[in-house]
Amino acid sequence: MKVDQLSQKEETRINAQPNILMKKARTLPVYVCRNIWKVGKDDPRRVIHALKVGVALTLVSFLYLLETLFEGVGQNAMWAVITVVVVLEFTAGATLCKGLNRGFGTLCAVSLAFFIEFMAEETGRVYRAVFIGATVFLVGFMSTYLRFFPFIKKNYDYGVVIFLLTFNLITVSSFRVQNVLHMAQERLYTIAIGCGICLLMSLLIFPNWSGEDLHRSTARKFEALAKSIEGCIDEYFHDKDDKVSENKLDGSIYKGYRAVLDSKFSDETLASFASWEPRPTRHCHKYPWQQYVKLGTVLRHFGYTAVALHGCLQSEIQAPKSVRLLFRDPCMRVASEVSKVLVELAYSISNRRLFSHDALSDHLHEALRDLNSAIKSHPRLFLGSKNGRKVTETKHDKASSAVALPSLKTDTSVMLQWKSNRIADQPKNSSEQKQLRPTLSKLAITTLEFSEALPFAAFASLLVEMVARLELVIEEVEELGRAAYFRESTASDELTIKVKIDNMRQDENSHDLHTHEVHRIVD
Amino acid sequence: MKVDQLSQKEETRINAQPNILMKKARTLPVYVCRNIWKVGKDDPRRVIHALKVGVALTLVSFLYLLETLFEGVGQNAMWAVITVVVVLEFTAGATLCKGLNRGFGTLCAVSLAFFIEFMAEETGRVYRAVFIGATVFLVGFMSTYLRFFPFIKKNYDYGVVIFLLTFNLITVSSFRVQNVLHMAQERLYTIAIGCGICLLMSLLIFPNWSGEDLHRSTARKFEALAKSIEGCIDEYFHDKDDKVSENKLDGSIYKGYRAVLDSKFSDETLASFASWEPRPTRHCHKYPWQQYVKLGTVLRHFGYTAVALHGCLQSEIQAPKSVRLLFRDPCMRVASEVSKVLVELAYSISNRRLFSHDALSDHLHEALRDLNSAIKSHPRLFLGSKNGRKVTETKHDKASSAVALPSLKTDTSVMLQWKSNRIADQPKNSSEQKQLRPTLSKLAITTLEFSEALPFAAFASLLVEMVARLELVIEEVEELGRAAYFRESTASDELTIKVKIDNMRQDENSHDLHTHEVHRIVD
Repeated sequence: MKVDQLSQKEETRINAQPNILMKKARTLPVYVCRNIWKVGKDDPRRVIHALKVGVALTLVSFLYLLETLFEGVGQNAMWAVITVVVVLEFTAGATLCKGLNRGFGTLCAVSLAFFIEFMAEETGRVYRAVFIGATVFLVGFMSTYLRFFPFIKKNYDYGVVIFLLTFNLITVSSFRVQNVLHMAQERLYTIAIGCGICLLMSLLIFPNWSGEDLHRSTARKFEALAKSIEGCIDEYFHDKDDKVSENKLDGSIYKGYRAVLDSKFSDETLASFASWEPRPTRHCHKYPWQQYVKLGTVLRHFGYTAVALHGCLQSEIQAPKSVRLLFRDPCMRVASEVSKVLVELAYSISNRRLFSHDALSDHLHEALRDLNSAIKSHPRLFLGSKNGRKVTETKHDKASSAVALPSLKTDTSVMLQWKSNRIADQPKNSSEQKQLRPTLSKLAITTLEFSEALPFAAFASLLVEMVARLELVIEEVEELGRAAYFRESTASDELTIKVKIDNMRQDENSHDLHTHEVHRIVD
Repeated sequence: MKVDQLSQKEETRINAQPNILMKKARTLPVYVCRNIWKVGKDDPRRVIHALKVGVALTLVSFLYLLETLFEGVGQNAMWAVITVVVVLEFTAGATLCKGLNRGFGTLCAVSLAFFIEFMAEETGRVYRAVFIGATVFLVGFMSTYLRFFPFIKKNYDYGVVIFLLTFNLITVSSFRVQNVLHMAQERLYTIAIGCGICLLMSLLIFPNWSGEDLHRSTARKFEALAKSIEGCIDEYFHDKDDKVSENKLDGSIYKGYRAVLDSKFSDETLASFASWEPRPTRHCHKYPWQQYVKLGTVLRHFGYTAVALHGCLQSEIQAPKSVRLLFRDPCMRVASEVSKVLVELAYSISNRRLFSHDALSDHLHEALRDLNSAIKSHPRLFLGSKNGRKVTETKHDKASSAVALPSLKTDTSVMLQWKSNRIADQPKNSSEQKQLRPTLSKLAITTLEFSEALPFAAFASLLVEMVARLELVIEEVEELGRAAYFRESTASDELTIKVKIDNMRQDENSHDLHTHEVHRIVD
């Protein structure tokens, strides 16, 4: 009977397989089309760049297609094609970096190759072959070793590769070809044509500047952090039974600081390309791209506190809700001041306006002072014994008391249950974000009874630490403003910021109303 | 008089300049030599790789230098040279990735070029030129657009570039050259020769495996984190007046977690190269390189708590020393259990041995329970008012009381002093690490009086959070062990780990002795 059922199942499976394949085949074009559309929609500059490459290649193929041009350069036209394919990059800085590296590498290689040619000129054929072989080995060894130096690796890696390539091509072909000088000259011409087309395309026609990308992404990071922090505070102080919206909020918090934490590599790359870009500035100064990298480092350092704050939400030992509600106002004020400062800094960077350091810090410190006096006005809460519980008894729903009053269960049955849970949980969802939720250690930790004050104290302490690190961020933005000659902010700037902050205040006020109601119930 | 002095100074400066230049010129060769030596000493495989490139280039230049070989391939030998220069990379995985991409890209391009050639064969010359131009534009546009797809970008970027390059070269030169088939064939041969030499060099002669690099760097990250955490705890609980050694310790803590936090890009690159490497395994399974990337993500998540812990040390509001001393033993026990687990995991990974999850967790939870009961046994400490201070009065040196008993100074003189300090401090040292010390916000924050319990509670809470996240790390390592078929640990493994842990315990005991002395003084 069982075997029958199994074979029936197997048969259904086999019959179903072509159907699934058919379905997949039918949905595949839709999926591909949607992806193609999405890549272009996410950043329309990609479409423009692809068109630019197409045009540049067509232009360079005229060297072959038009009779008059072909007579001038001949078979060497292929070097122009190679140059366009390899050098034309998405941003102007990357193209310039590659183009100049290629040009300079080729020049060096040609010079060295002629020197070697000159040395080996008057000797016999066999001796010459040996000499060329030895030179090829030595130059290959040395330039490969050179590529391991961090400074070379960072700025001139491509140049060294091109040097090695060109040197080898000229040196070894000089053994067979008589007129190497002519060959090298023609090759240089065509490479120059290729580089010229690339520079024209990337600098003059719809240019994408690495510097602009870096500038904008830096401003965006501030906004992302502000949102992340607001999200954390919202989640900490609001009781949401709605699991779905909580997960959604969690995702947006995560996305916010993740964008900052993972930005090291892209920041450094953009800054190094940006340093190749010519930039017309009012003050004829070198634009301080390295300052953006420094600012990024300090911002990541600040971001770690946002991660830690988020950790407080996900932690299994939580402060009881009533304790949180008591400190809700001052905490929310500190957090909203922090995110206000971040929004102002984002505005200052993206519009290249100076800001007033003192105005920013004063509000922050006022909010900190309020938090401090709120904590001092409830000293009994930090007891963690019966005294503390009196305050919390007034409004104590089931969920919070379960967290606040766990007993020290260490009997074997619980441990066994935990272990069996652990085994059942093994086939996990592998999505990166879910991975990071401390789920399995839940039972192990909630069986411990910590002081009620502990988790809230950690939260408050992180807020304070956050303000301290924000000072560093403000310093760095100020430094950037000085180095990049940001303009004084005008009345219209202040108005824009005011509108932004007013919008934020309105959101806050609606929270406050809610809080007052809760306080009435608690008192 | 003043002018005289100034001009004298100026003169001395001008006289001194050549001397400085001379000195620099004399020290430069020493500096360069030292750097050359250092690059090789840091990783001797670099020297071997450079030698390998030299040998490969010499081998490929034989195609030109030896009469018999040159007759076979002719001018197309240059493609072999180009292939060797471009494809031969440091690790086997990178070489394979580039080589296969190059081969596959060339094949696709040749096929498509012949199809186009076949389509345009029977038409007039002008129509053919237009047709070729249009094709070049279209293929250029489409393949550049394709490079923006994340999946293509990650795995096949180089292949698409080579496809575009080869397609253009063949299509446009087919307009002038008659026997394109022959040309393409010869080119394929020489590229195959080049790829062959590269694969020989990178797979058979002193191969460097990306997979091995990833494996070793993952194990090293665990050890770095263990050291970092031990360093944090040491600094938190020991009074060191010696500023220099503190700075040194700070640097090593920073280095430890920094290595983990900045590893995302290198992990992903190594894993993607490693997935190209053929790997002889006992179980004929695909080696789970992506699991290393996942483990890296979880480890970074764990690392953020190490950053936060370090933040506690650098924070300007500190728990008084006496409070720290009271909880020193249980805290140190938790931290040492955490770093023990990290060391065991490092050993498990680097020797591909399984470990016992339960043995690891049990010790951890026992240490957590001790910390919990220690905190519960001193409920008065969490008061933060006069009650709390009684305990701390017994041993209160000047420095700690200055931190513990700050008063709410908000008068204008202090704020003015702070602002003038801020201006004087502006020309800062730009070293990355110094940047991250919250120095300027010092005065602004120490003027606030927080509960004494707050900073310590944050510290303890971070330790608990650290244990919770460590559970996730243990899970991931277990998962890795299953997926990569780690072997059961033998008696000798357990002995090795025991020796390691004993060594750590000895260090700890020497701390403990010191603690007991301090306790005697406090009691």
